[in-house]
Amino acid sequence: MRKKTIIGVVGASNASPRGLEYAYRVGRLITENGAVLACGGLGGVMESASRGCAEAGGDVLGILPGDSAASANPYVSLPIVTDMGHARNVIIAQTSNAIIAVEGEYGTLSEIAIGLKLGKVVVQLNSFPQISTAHQAQTPEQAVEIVFAALQKGKLANG
Amino acid sequence: MRKKTIIGVVGASNASPRGLEYAYRVGRLITENGAVLACGGLGGVMESASRGCAEAGGDVLGILPGDSAASANPYVSLPIVTDMGHARNVIIAQTSNAIIAVEGEYGTLSEIAIGLKLGKVVVQLNSFPQISTAHQAQTPEQAVEIVFAALQKGKLANG
Amino acid sequence: MRKKTIIGVVGASNASPRGLEYAYRVGRLITENGAVLACGGLGGVMESASRGCAEAGGDVLGILPGDSAASANPYVSLPIVTDMGHARNVIIAQTSNAIIAVEGEYGTLSEIAIGLKLGKVVVQLNSFPQISTAHQAQTPEQAVEIVFAALQKGKLANG
Amino acid sequence: MRKKTIIGVVGASNASPRGLEYAYRVGRLITENGAVLACGGLGGVMESASRGCAEAGGDVLGILPGDSAASANPYVSLPIVTDMGHARNVIIAQTSNAIIAVEGEYGTLSEIAIGLKLGKVVVQLNSFPQISTAHQAQTPEQAVEIVFAALQKGKLANG
Repeated sequence: MRKKTIIGVVGASNASPRGLEYAYRVGRLITENGAVLACGGLGGVMESASRGCAEAGGDVLGILPGDSAASANPYVSLPIVTDMGHARNVIIAQTSNAIIAVEGEYGTLSEIAIGLKLGKVVVQLNSFPQISTAHQAQTPEQAVEIVFAALQKGKLANG
Repeated sequence: MRKKTIIGVVGASNASPRGLEYAYRVGRLITENGAVLACGGLGGVMESASRGCAEAGGDVLGILPGDSAASANPYVSLPIVTDMGHARNVIIAQTSNAIIAVEGEYGTLSEIAIGLKLGKVVVQLNSFPQISTAHQAQTPEQAVEIVFAALQKGKLANG
Repeated sequence: MRKKTIIGVVGASNASPRGLEYAYRVGRLITENGAVLACGGLGGVMESASRGCAEAGGDVLGILPGDSAASANPYVSLPIVTDMGHARNVIIAQTSNAIIAVEGEYGTLSEIAIGLKLGKVVVQLNSFPQISTAHQAQTPEQAVEIVFAALQKGKLANG
Repeated sequence: MRKKTIIGVVGASNASPRGLEYAYRVGRLITENGAVLACGGLGGVMESASRGCAEAGGDVLGILPGDSAASANPYVSLPIVTDMGHARNVIIAQTSNAIIAVEGEYGTLSEIAIGLKLGKVVVQLNSFPQISTAHQAQTPEQAVEIVFAALQKGKLANG
């Protein structure tokens, strides 16, 4: 099997400076752990995470809400043109082996909700702490560690 | 313009006896207020709300996740066959002029999130109180009153 | 079971005067036969068929590609807001018990193709005659007759 | 900009031996020309094209209709889990810079139709010759040559 591990990073176009920095570090670490990033392909958290992946030499799936690849941020290498608006959030959650949410607004909350519905590992960084069934991480490093530890455990359990 | 007012009722297939009773009463009141119900078309809260509408003589849009109208509960008059799984939640939120959530699980949370993202009036009945930007109602009657008061105000504001 | 029969009418925003007239008559006949119209909710063939239904007192499902009910033609009574662009064509084909295509462009061809893929009765009026597995009708009356005869036969076969 | 060129190969799970051979050669050539393959991710033409890409060392986007990456053929490296059935055909057409159809059934026809609707270069290999606005190729080599010549011309025109 050639399937690559895909980690979703979800968050909004508007983010704090710390959120952007966290997203960048998450993106770098995803690539350094050998996985591909999936995100919404636009700005803010999505762009920072994409840049982190890109600078580490990794591929970025930008699952876009609009009807043109031209809307992707410059770090997306593989734009998926859904033209489905908010419904593309569901595709991101389904496509990702695990999800890391960085801050975020209601669109992000919908992705967290679908991720949890699907039984995926969902880790939050200053996102929606009131959704307590998701993991809460304090740093990008911790978020990525939780994700890959869980995936590793899942593989062992299946194997 | 012939557009009918469409009120979305969202909730899970699993619900408490009180949740089912509340959904039924919400459904009846939607019809009695001259609106059409939109829901996910399956069981539990969706079916109880549909039954309430049906018994009051109203139309029920069942926006179904699967590939066949046969999956609709028996009170759906207009099955919309999306075959889009959880992405149909987004269509429900977009199609509804306002949304009432009755209890619910993560799928419901995704609908509340998209509803709020779209700036819709979202009223909760024992749903996700930690999402405090949605209205909290104590009874079906209050939930429906909040919805129609807000829609009436919106119409006056637009007119 | 309260499910209403839903007939899809597919065609483009651009149509000949005869196409518009045919769509109008198809719309009227759908209502007079007790069914509900599903269409893409926009102009041209969609609007003429909607007007035919509306003037006969019937309901019109407008399964819209955009993100707002405001884009529906004035004869739509039940706007379904998919925000899914061309993917809403698939929802129209799946939701319709049978499909009548009036003229049309490539979007219409995609709906004919999905309808045939799903094993639906598809009737064409000056549409894509090179797709010969669809029924070819010469008049709106004949198109509607083929549809309801097939549905009646299906019901008898199932009963 | 890091965007990779994505070529869609569309066709059915059922194909002739020649169709499978053609799909394989198309897949190889897509990779050898530096592009990524997008396909429906299942068997038949989709799997043969995926195998061609994989054996040449390229990435394969499998835009899946179902709700699990496990349904992807073994040559898919990047499964996109849409859970949207036939609507995923639209995402394939939108995501691809150009489309090559190998034989195919009605699902393939819907992808050709959407591709043409979007103004994409669509090349057919023994597919639906009655849709004469698509290019007709006699061999995989010719199909791929038409695609990359058109993309090159498009780039020059834009530059």
